[in-house]
Amino acid sequence: MEKFFPYAQLLSFTHKVFRQMGCSEEDASIAAEVLLSADLRGIDSHGVARLSGYIRLWQAKRINAQPVIKVIHETPSTAVVDGGQGLGLVVAPFAMKLAMEKAEKVGTGWVAVQNSNHFGIAGYHAMMALSKDMIGMAMTNASALVAPTFSKEKMLGTNPIAVAIPAGNEPPFVADFATTTAANGKLEILQRKQQDTPEGWVQDENGVPSNDANILKKNGSLLPLGSDKTHGSHKGYALGSIVDIFSAVLSGASYGPWAPPFPAYIPMPDNMPGEGLGHFVGAMRIDAFRPAATFKRHMDNWIGRFRSAKPIDPVNPVLIPGDPERIMEAERMKTGIPLLPVVVDDLIAAGDLFGIRL
Amino acid sequence: MEKFFPYAQLLSFTHKVFRQMGCSEEDASIAAEVLLSADLRGIDSHGVARLSGYIRLWQAKRINAQPVIKVIHETPSTAVVDGGQGLGLVVAPFAMKLAMEKAEKVGTGWVAVQNSNHFGIAGYHAMMALSKDMIGMAMTNASALVAPTFSKEKMLGTNPIAVAIPAGNEPPFVADFATTTAANGKLEILQRKQQDTPEGWVQDENGVPSNDANILKKNGSLLPLGSDKTHGSHKGYALGSIVDIFSAVLSGASYGPWAPPFPAYIPMPDNMPGEGLGHFVGAMRIDAFRPAATFKRHMDNWIGRFRSAKPIDPVNPVLIPGDPERIMEAERMKTGIPLLPVVVDDLIAAGDLFGIRL
Repeated sequence: MEKFFPYAQLLSFTHKVFRQMGCSEEDASIAAEVLLSADLRGIDSHGVARLSGYIRLWQAKRINAQPVIKVIHETPSTAVVDGGQGLGLVVAPFAMKLAMEKAEKVGTGWVAVQNSNHFGIAGYHAMMALSKDMIGMAMTNASALVAPTFSKEKMLGTNPIAVAIPAGNEPPFVADFATTTAANGKLEILQRKQQDTPEGWVQDENGVPSNDANILKKNGSLLPLGSDKTHGSHKGYALGSIVDIFSAVLSGASYGPWAPPFPAYIPMPDNMPGEGLGHFVGAMRIDAFRPAATFKRHMDNWIGRFRSAKPIDPVNPVLIPGDPERIMEAERMKTGIPLLPVVVDDLIAAGDLFGIRL
Repeated sequence: MEKFFPYAQLLSFTHKVFRQMGCSEEDASIAAEVLLSADLRGIDSHGVARLSGYIRLWQAKRINAQPVIKVIHETPSTAVVDGGQGLGLVVAPFAMKLAMEKAEKVGTGWVAVQNSNHFGIAGYHAMMALSKDMIGMAMTNASALVAPTFSKEKMLGTNPIAVAIPAGNEPPFVADFATTTAANGKLEILQRKQQDTPEGWVQDENGVPSNDANILKKNGSLLPLGSDKTHGSHKGYALGSIVDIFSAVLSGASYGPWAPPFPAYIPMPDNMPGEGLGHFVGAMRIDAFRPAATFKRHMDNWIGRFRSAKPIDPVNPVLIPGDPERIMEAERMKTGIPLLPVVVDDLIAAGDLFGIRL
């Protein structure tokens, strides 16, 4: 059974772990906040459950806890950042702040990042823009788990896209999704429950449709959003490719099947064409287009109209992107964050490494 | 049976029609070129088959053939353009040129457009950036045909996204897709053949899955990319929403279910919250991130690697976005453009209006 932990307790624990890894006080704070934001928002696969994975990457010297993060090229509206092999949890907020500074000056800012690592949930970074009346965007490439349409080979990560758009009285519009039919985290849930996947989520090593939630361990692959050609998988494949190219080809990171794997036990690919993992973030100042108050009034109207769209079943009203995560966050701030025994054991072991108690 | 017409003949005919509608020589040229690019690239639903639809909108005074296209707000990297109720075929290239001028100066340019009309294929506008070593993007909102996840009400258009990325020796990467499982044009093909749709493309007026290719005429709706919640339709719904918000809420156009309908016989919605249809286009100078030659070398490597991804069936190798359209264009430049008798009759009737022979 799951056990509930208060947010503050997990945040403090995670902060201490990052400090012990050698992160600065400031970096440990932001890294812990980004990581825990996934647990709060219900994206459990990207939260503290991954902490031990980051530690193993640090032990394997694939993560530098004291990175030199550098701007290696820039124009008024763009920059390329070298993440110094740091935690993506730290590098991505640096890049997003830079994008927002540029947006402040010239209307928009776009930052491509090389030489980074897994950055947690894309939504966190995109949402940084909201308080400044900006639209925020964040995407990242990731370890190859996804086969393009017509292929049986894993070539792309689940390559998420997040877009956060401010509203007025309504909560913001926050889309944050993997460019696959189902995120890897959904497979992990089914694995624990020893259940099969629905049709259209995965295929086996020969490219034959499968329902096996463990198929990725057997050379199978995830399918792009759309599942198959008839249902538009070429569109999901194109989206995942755009994320890969913006995040890694534009930045000088390692792309496609050469993206560095998250599990530290998987060897790094041969002949990597770039440096580490890549991200792409952007910020657009609303009033670079129209007055923010006017825009937000129309967003309230947009959101209100979509919420009132005729439901198929009144029990399931139409949701606005970001609704489920926001509701989850409010709930978990009260109830605490539920962790599976295997995750708790993992955290305790991680703490023991550094003499920190959960 | 279809009849084949040389590209030059259809281009000249279309140009003359736009001239007779009152377009300037320059506007008629670009409008004809954009419209015909759809036929060349095999997106027959967006080509000359729509010419009579544009004429009817002009007759209904919803299209102004001599629009005053104005920049109504700008910053170094952004602008909002008022399309003066012009042809989107003319307004969108204006906006894209402006985005490219801004990208030339400050690295990127982003232009939101209000008070426009249907702009043809998104891919044409995105591809304008390629010759300048820029990445081009284009999107537009459109008449509401798509129901959000959990809804039975048409709230969004098929809201396409196009992204064009230059390569070196390889042809460019050009993604151009509706954010639905299937584009409306695919339904039209099935209607003509009197065939059913596959599962997951459409639903009926009660939100029940349907296979009826004519269901849109019976208050049914298209489904967002992903088809249903289990297969990620909330992602397709989010994508279509982002296109709607960027194109119309950011620009001051009319959004969501209030988007102006393309068929001139459908009355304009009541209480429209903005002006006309909206687009959003962008250009990013490659060397605002890294040297264009280096980027293009890596794009060649990316494309080559993806082309060689292990195919499920060697008869269907992995394609790069833009491959099918480019192959079609080369073919149709030679063979001519096939038009159905109903389309030919429609064009002849359109020509008769203005005393022009096909």
